[in-house]
Parts: sequence; C-alpha cells; structure tokens
Amino acid sequence: MTAYKELEKIFGTISDLGHVSAICGWDETVNMSNGGGPSRANAMAALSLVMHNMIVDPKLGDLFKKAKKLKGLTNWQKSNLREMHDQWQDATLIPGSIVEELTKVNSTTEHAWRELRIKNDWKNFRPHLEKTVAIVIKEATILSDHYGCSLYDSLLMGYEPSFNSKELDQLFGKLKKFLPKFIDKVIAKQNEHTILLPTGPFAVNKQKELGLKLIDVAGFDFNRGRLDLSHHPFCGGVSDDVRITTRYVEDDFTQSLMGILHEAGHGKYEQGLPRKWRGQPVGQARSMAVHESQSLLQEMQICLSKEFITFASKHIKEVFGMDGPEYAPENLYRYYTQVEKSLIRVDADEVTYPLHIILRYEIEKDLINGEIKVKDIPALWDEKMKEYFNLNTKGNYKDGCMQDVHWPCGSFGYFPSYTLGALMAAQLYSTVKTEHPAIPSEIEKGKWKTLNKWLEQNIWSQGCLHDTDKLINNATGESLNIDYFKNYLTNKYLKA
Amino acid sequence: MTAYKELEKIFGTISDLGHVSAICGWDETVNMSNGGGPSRANAMAALSLVMHNMIVDPKLGDLFKKAKKLKGLTNWQKSNLREMHDQWQDATLIPGSIVEELTKVNSTTEHAWRELRIKNDWKNFRPHLEKTVAIVIKEATILSDHYGCSLYDSLLMGYEPSFNSKELDQLFGKLKKFLPKFIDKVIAKQNEHTILLPTGPFAVNKQKELGLKLIDVAGFDFNRGRLDLSHHPFCGGVSDDVRITTRYVEDDFTQSLMGILHEAGHGKYEQGLPRKWRGQPVGQARSMAVHESQSLLQEMQICLSKEFITFASKHIKEVFGMDGPEYAPENLYRYYTQVEKSLIRVDADEVTYPLHIILRYEIEKDLINGEIKVKDIPALWDEKMKEYFNLNTKGNYKDGCMQDVHWPCGSFGYFPSYTLGALMAAQLYSTVKTEHPAIPSEIEKGKWKTLNKWLEQNIWSQGCLHDTDKLINNATGESLNIDYFKNYLTNKYLKA
Repeated sequence: MTAYKELEKIFGTISDLGHVSAICGWDETVNMSNGGGPSRANAMAALSLVMHNMIVDPKLGDLFKKAKKLKGLTNWQKSNLREMHDQWQDATLIPGSIVEELTKVNSTTEHAWRELRIKNDWKNFRPHLEKTVAIVIKEATILSDHYGCSLYDSLLMGYEPSFNSKELDQLFGKLKKFLPKFIDKVIAKQNEHTILLPTGPFAVNKQKELGLKLIDVAGFDFNRGRLDLSHHPFCGGVSDDVRITTRYVEDDFTQSLMGILHEAGHGKYEQGLPRKWRGQPVGQARSMAVHESQSLLQEMQICLSKEFITFASKHIKEVFGMDGPEYAPENLYRYYTQVEKSLIRVDADEVTYPLHIILRYEIEKDLINGEIKVKDIPALWDEKMKEYFNLNTKGNYKDGCMQDVHWPCGSFGYFPSYTLGALMAAQLYSTVKTEHPAIPSEIEKGKWKTLNKWLEQNIWSQGCLHDTDKLINNATGESLNIDYFKNYLTNKYLKA
Repeated sequence: MTAYKELEKIFGTISDLGHVSAICGWDETVNMSNGGGPSRANAMAALSLVMHNMIVDPKLGDLFKKAKKLKGLTNWQKSNLREMHDQWQDATLIPGSIVEELTKVNSTTEHAWRELRIKNDWKNFRPHLEKTVAIVIKEATILSDHYGCSLYDSLLMGYEPSFNSKELDQLFGKLKKFLPKFIDKVIAKQNEHTILLPTGPFAVNKQKELGLKLIDVAGFDFNRGRLDLSHHPFCGGVSDDVRITTRYVEDDFTQSLMGILHEAGHGKYEQGLPRKWRGQPVGQARSMAVHESQSLLQEMQICLSKEFITFASKHIKEVFGMDGPEYAPENLYRYYTQVEKSLIRVDADEVTYPLHIILRYEIEKDLINGEIKVKDIPALWDEKMKEYFNLNTKGNYKDGCMQDVHWPCGSFGYFPSYTLGALMAAQLYSTVKTEHPAIPSEIEKGKWKTLNKWLEQNIWSQGCLHDTDKLINNATGESLNIDYFKNYLTNKYLKA
C-alpha cells in the first residue's frame, strides 16, 4: 500500500467515527433525555479523543513525507492529500487533553444554554460560557502561535480558510457604510404598502407537511435525509443521511417554512458532495461560508423571489385550507420580504441580517483576542443593538446575547460565514441566471432541475478540490465581489 | 495509578464508545434514512473495530496479571476485575477482521430484513442470513475451541453465562412435557367464557399517551429515557438515557400497551443499575436472561394480573373516551390472558411462549452446530409449528422464520434468555409477594414503590457483582427452580 493509500485508510476511519459523532450530535439536540447529558458529554469527549489520537499518531508525519514525493497522483488525490495534511497540522498542534476538555465543556455549556436561555438566566449561564471561552482561547493560543496570526483569525480559519479578519473588516466596513441608510430607505418605501397578516392557528403537522412538500420540490433527497424538531434549527448528520431540523410556532407558519428551506439548502449541498470521495477530506464541504452560500442561495435568492412565492402560495392555501387576499402571492411576497429592525438574528430579513452578524463578529473578535471579557458581553450587545438598530436589549438576554447556539457550542468564528455566504449566494445566482435566464420562470413552475444541476456541477460535486477563492472564480469568473450583493438588494428592495 | 485503576480507565473509554454505539444503534432502527444504510454499516464497523483494538491491546494482559496480585480491592472492584477479564478474554480470542465483518454483515442483514420481511421475500433474504450465519459460526468456532464447549454453547455464554445447552435441554424438556397438555386444558377452560373485543380505531397518539401514563406509574424515569416507534420493539440506549420503542396498530391498543410495559421493564432495570459503577463492566446488567426476567416480571406477573388490569382499565376508558362491558376489568383480564396457539412469538401469551422459544432454540442450536443449513430453516420451522401448535406456516415466511429481528442481527443464543427470564420472573415475584403480601393491592392502586424498591435492592443495584445463580439465590434463597413457573401458570390459568 502506498503512503497515500495508507493515509486514505486512516482518514476513512476517522470519517467513520465522525459519522457516529455527527449522528449522536444530532441526537443530543433532537432526542436526548435531560438526565442523559452528563454521560453523553463524557462519551462524546472520549470519542473525540480517540479521533484525535488517530490523527496525531506519529506515523502520519512520515506518511505525509512519503506521500508528498509520490508521482502520478490525480488532481483529486493531490487535493485530498492537501486537505488531510491541513487537518493533521491543526490536530497535531492541539494536545489531546485540550480536545477532550473542549468537547466536554462545549457539550455541558450547550446543554446548560438550552435550559437557561428560556429562563433568561444570564447569571447562571455566564460561568458556563466563561469556561467555554477559556478553553477556546487555550486552543486559539496554540493555533495562532503556529500560524502567526491573531487568536481570532486562528479560529476563523476553521470555518473559512480564505478570509482573515483584516479582509472581513474591509468587507464588513463597506456593508456598515451601505446598509443603515439603505435599510431606512427600504423601510420608508415598504411603509407605502399595507401587508395583510396570515392568521392561524396553523397546525404543526400541516406546517411540517408543507415544508416536506416544498423541499421535496426543491430536490432534497428523502432517501438520504429527514426533517425533525429542535430548539435551534440546524443541518446535521452525514452526506448519505442528512438530518435537518426546525421549530414550529402555531400562530405563524412562515418562519418554519423558510427555516426548513434554508436548512434543506445545506442538506442538498451535503447530499450533492462527490460520491466517489465520501469519507475522505476532499469529499467534504469546502467551508462553512460556502455551506451558508448554499442555504442562503436557496432561501433568499430563490425562495424569497416572486416566482417561488407564486408557486408556494398554491401549496400554502391547499395545505392549510386557507384562502383570501393574505395568501395572494403579491401579499405573501411583501410579507416575506418585509425589512425590519429586530432583536433575533434567525428571524431577521436578509437586509438587516449582516448587521446582526457584524455585531457578533465585533464582539467575538474582541472576546477571543482578549480585549473584552464574557461579563462585558451584555452591555456591549446592548450598545451595538442601539447603534445599529436603535433597539434596547437591556436585561433581555434571551433575545439578546443568549439567543444563539454558536457561542454555547464553542463555535467562535462561525458567524462571519453567514454574511460571506450571503455575498457568495448573490454572486452565484447572478451568474447562473445569466447563463440560464429561464430559471426564475422554471422555479415558478416548481422545476429546479436546471438550477440544481448547475449548483451540483459548479459547487456541490467540487467538494474540497479547490480553495474557496478558486471555487468561486471557477463558478463565476471572478473572486468574491460585494457589488453583486448590493445590486441584488437594490434591485429587489428599492427598484422592483 | 494501580493496574486496576488503569484497567478501569480503559474500560471506561470502551464504555463511552459503547454509549455512542448504542445511541447510533437505536437511531439506525428508529430514524435512519434507507440510503444511509451502507455508510452507517461502515461507520459502525469502524467503531466496533476501534473498541475491539482497545480491548485487545497487548498491555492489558500485563495489567490483568498485576491487578490480580493487588491486595485490598473491595468486593465490587474484585467483581469488576472479573468482568473486565471475561470481556478481555472473549475479545482477545476474536481477530479484529472478524469483529469488523460481524458488525458490517449484521447491519446489512438487519437492514435487508427490514425491507424483505414485509415483502415475505425469503428468497432474497436467505443469502443475507447465510452470510450472517457463516460469520457467526466463524466466531463461535474460535470461542468453542478455547472454552472446550459446543459452537452453540459458546454463543449462549454471551447472553447468559450460567446455563449451557445441556441444562437448557433439561429445563426445556420439562416444559415440553408440561406445556402441550396444559395449554389444551387452559384453552378448554377459557372456552367456557365469552370475551368481548374492544373495537377501535384507537388513535396512535392516544395509545402513546396511555403507554406513557402507565409506564410513568410503573416508575420508568422520563428524565433518563424516552419512548419511540420502531418495526420491532426493543429497549436500547444507555442507563442514563434509555430508549424504548414500540409499534402501534390502529385497531388494537392492547398489544402496544403491553409491549411498552414490557420494554419499560427492561428500561427500569437499566435505570436502576448501580450509579456508582456506571461505565464499568460490573455496573452493567447481569445477563440477557436476567434482563428478560425484569421485563417479564413487569409485563406478565404484574401487568397481566387482575389488580393491574383493574387499575389500567380506568385509564384505558379515560384516554380513549370509551366505556362498556368490553372495558370492564374482568373482561380485559380475560382478553389479555387468553391462551392461543399462534404464529407470532411477540404476540404470543405467556403460556404458549416457551414453545415458540424452544422451537427457535432447537433450530438455532442445530444451525450453529452445523447440523442443518439456512436453507433448511423454513421446512423445519413449519414442521415444528405443526408439532407444537398444529399450525401451518408453509410459504408464510413473514409470520414464520422471518418474523424475528434476532437472527438478522446475528444474535444466535439469545432466544433461551426469554424463557429463562420467565422462569426467574415467576420465582422472584413469588418471593417478593411472600415478603410483602400487600404488593398486589398496592399495584391495584397504582403504587409500585414497594415492588420497585425490592427489585432495585435485590436485582437492579447488584449489577454484575455476582453471577446469575448467586444473584437468584441471594434474592430468593434458592437456585432457578422451574416449579415456580409451573405453579404460577397453574394458579393463574386453571385454578383462579
């Protein structure tokens, strides 16, 4: 067996254990009994440590040396070798004890968050988050020493290796300039119209039926995936068994519906990853930013278009047995594209969303870089919510700094991926529409084939063959360009 | 760290991985998408191999040598050392390649069984089962060579180390003598009464509500467990997060209800295992036979008593909003204790049940010992069903030899545990009733405390401190004695 093949075998086993870990991670959120928390945390930590020990096995260093000298590797194999090497590099830097602690602390904090968020209990949550931040900083210190970057940049790399905080400061700086005035203009324009509210109750089983129907139309493969309930919607599981989740409220079907379509966008990316490279690093999704581009392209670019809403409104009426002007496509479109300064990120519209991200980015960057402490978060949150949205969050932790699952999970550096994804989505959809101008009218007829085929060819099937910049260049002919997003918003919200 | 403590640490990690494996095993049956099967099978096989490699690590041999010389171990530690040693012994005998193959083949066969059973498709299922039997025999060959016993006995040991097939032949021989005539007498006696059938439909969510209510009363801890749906009811998960499952049919609530109570009996045993020894071999359930004794004690001895059915009938009427003579305790009791010669083991009453087991025992013993082949099973099944019950199963694989999950899972040697458990249950309940004669009247009032406390003290909290024989002796003052079961059946079905 060549050194390359031996590496493939080792990373294949790590991927198999990752499969088990992903399913248990989903289970923890969807099914686990409260009393099962502590022993689950131990079990997941032990599994992480086993995976970690496999990747830091000293023999891998030799195998990489030998594999790099091999002639005749295909491009995919070369990229796989690069991805394996990157994973190995990161892993060898972090001692097993820290990996174990990370998993255990994150699991405990996430579990505490689930209980304490609903009680608005920052006081009891804070010590948990402090433990999480402390151990994450320990990890970041090691990574940043090695890579010669800031603490926060060393975490960013884990989600999107193609962008550092200097570049994000520039991109986000442009958005901070553009958005506030733009938002005010849009809100003023939208105030010219009255929007009729669809009023429920909308039975949860009907909402689920509707969601299942529409993601089926969108091409989510139910032979390799399912939809369940969880506090915080997410897309988990593995490529051949994708687990998307949502939450329902009886008096409003609109949020769960778009939530499901968003997560199904993630799910289709996972399902469309190159079959031939399942279980190998090169067969995985490129980055969290690219992942978000796929969920946002589906949710924002497609499903919040007049064409899709025209298609969907028929099914909405049918499933709930409702009719009337509030279910007319034009009203539903206005309802769904309403721009509002609001407290909750996951409920935010695509126009205000980047400011929610920038707020979190600014706080978590300073937190990880040691410029602020966990205790400072609520005041900073409140200050920035006032600055960006003129909203008060004092004492409202539940809808303030305790609203997201990311920090309790230790996922610092993830948030920017959402906005990077939104920028990519605008650029990708602009390109595919130029190449296939019939797509919007196809979507109106419930036909997603052309779009899905293009995405599969240009994004999904590419796995980690290239880095994000090359991937976007190959698909669109240029690097990430913020103008696509600005033009998209302007056309949709001011010109149309 | 002493050698003993080092062993505790290693077996703790193996238990953590076992936790993850148990949750994924439950998930496979309850949630997994069909398309996820092949990659799940790979992942579970990889996990098994990792666990196997941990236990066969050569350093363990030395640790056991050192640990055995240690002075001052407590009784629990000594028993833990014995259980660790037994697990290590079994594991070191089986090469990793066979373990991996076992997991992969069993997972694939079980998955095929789930698809093919409903189609009555023996032809396509047979090659899967042949693969499973072949690899199981490979394993048994190694074990039996080492232990100097028959192939089948080497598998029996995995479920109940205290009984071999010679002893089972004797016990089952007595039952084969006693039961057929007894069954005819009972059926003749029961024919004197007319039984009114409760007729549905009984909504599945109401059936679930009823099941949840009654196992709550019985002391199942929902903070450390849950109830879900699966093709074949089982009790899985881990002690602090027990996963019991059932299946519902709309026109009959009675089966799912007793099924849930049965599985909750397993679940309570798991939940009651010694907290202090979680994650260690001595903290696990004693054997599958003892496990079945706990589910059967709950289902048969308690829940199929007049007292419990009197209690349950109130809830049955309330949940379904039903009334009338068919829901009267006396009629429900007659309905539930009806004895019938039938095709399906899991639906069989406690009187005919042992013959279903003996049939399977005789076939699997000969199959594993190489005296018959997989292709011979349907004819043998049919022949024995004729002999024991005068029932024809020709061509009806679905309700014949394809009805059980055990063989597709590779669990040969498990079936006897059911009947051993039934015998133990009768002996245990006879003892506890002698010590606490008020228990039946407490059960009628929905009070399970005295019973649960006795079971916890005498069985659950004992884990693997003793072997099964000692456990039963400590609890009842004598070894397993078939007379308790015979007396129980005679009192319940002929005298009462």
